[in-house]
Amino acid sequence: MSTICHHTISLDGYIAGPDDAMDWAFAHGRPTALADETMKRLGATLAGRRWYELAKERWNGVAGIYGGAYAGPVFVLTHSAPNEGADPRIRFISDGIERAVATAQSAAGEKDVGIFGASLSRQCVNARLLDEIVLHVAPVLLGGGVRLFGDGSDEHVELERLSIGAAEGLTDLRYRVVKQRQE
Amino acid sequence: MSTICHHTISLDGYIAGPDDAMDWAFAHGRPTALADETMKRLGATLAGRRWYELAKERWNGVAGIYGGAYAGPVFVLTHSAPNEGADPRIRFISDGIERAVATAQSAAGEKDVGIFGASLSRQCVNARLLDEIVLHVAPVLLGGGVRLFGDGSDEHVELERLSIGAAEGLTDLRYRVVKQRQE
Repeated sequence: MSTICHHTISLDGYIAGPDDAMDWAFAHGRPTALADETMKRLGATLAGRRWYELAKERWNGVAGIYGGAYAGPVFVLTHSAPNEGADPRIRFISDGIERAVATAQSAAGEKDVGIFGASLSRQCVNARLLDEIVLHVAPVLLGGGVRLFGDGSDEHVELERLSIGAAEGLTDLRYRVVKQRQE
Repeated sequence: MSTICHHTISLDGYIAGPDDAMDWAFAHGRPTALADETMKRLGATLAGRRWYELAKERWNGVAGIYGGAYAGPVFVLTHSAPNEGADPRIRFISDGIERAVATAQSAAGEKDVGIFGASLSRQCVNARLLDEIVLHVAPVLLGGGVRLFGDGSDEHVELERLSIGAAEGLTDLRYRVVKQRQE
């Protein structure tokens, strides 16, 4: 079982545009076969607090994940769980990225864990907890917004391309993360 | 004739790593057929001052462009031309991006103009002077360095994918820039 960072991304590297806009991501064709395959592999998803707040506010909460096609548990890594009553499918985790990934993996059983959100994806890369990167590249430059891979790591991580593909305007890129550290 | 932004880029969007490192770009296989085809289309290249200083210092100057396979003129857009004697193939231009592109296009004749460097590429996109983007995506996350497409534009630019391809570790992506402004 693997941890998979799965996002639609603009060619200039954003997973959300200015003001967290997501309309561009849906403007270039329906989800690709790879998106569907990836979703079906997931037994649990792990997201960050920012993702949670946005999902609650804009995307119909966890019911909006994969347009309602994903029915598994959702773990949210946050320093402090909110007081409000959350969707029963959501569980908040506050004791660090290693523990969060382990908990999600345990819930996923034989299946994989989907990693959502820019900060969480980067944390997983830095902690060598990410196994796979699945991107659907949209044919657009956004010029600003939320970057999937922001600055400030300076750590060189090698990847191995597993597949490429094209579906309508979207370009699928799938990579395995090579776990040995580079010298 | 077109203006073409042509770069090898890491999956996280850098054209140079920390301290302007370029070794990663050459570590994943030889230039692809698309890289060679693109080079052959160029009748002139236009670069920024930062590119010029780096080329002079590290890459054997203009002789290092495309490993010596490119023999055309090189225009460098800069606020003030250096006093030092430069390579006779280099011409400095100081009167703005529109004039620089027009001058390079004039020198290229029926051929295309290659645009080198992050700042210059972005300036061309913003001024609607860029026609094509040709990228060779290297299977690596650099975590820092010089981004091809930095923040701060916030302008939505639509693209049309022309082709995708794979050669050794590199993934070729070729896009046309759609010139109508988005509302």
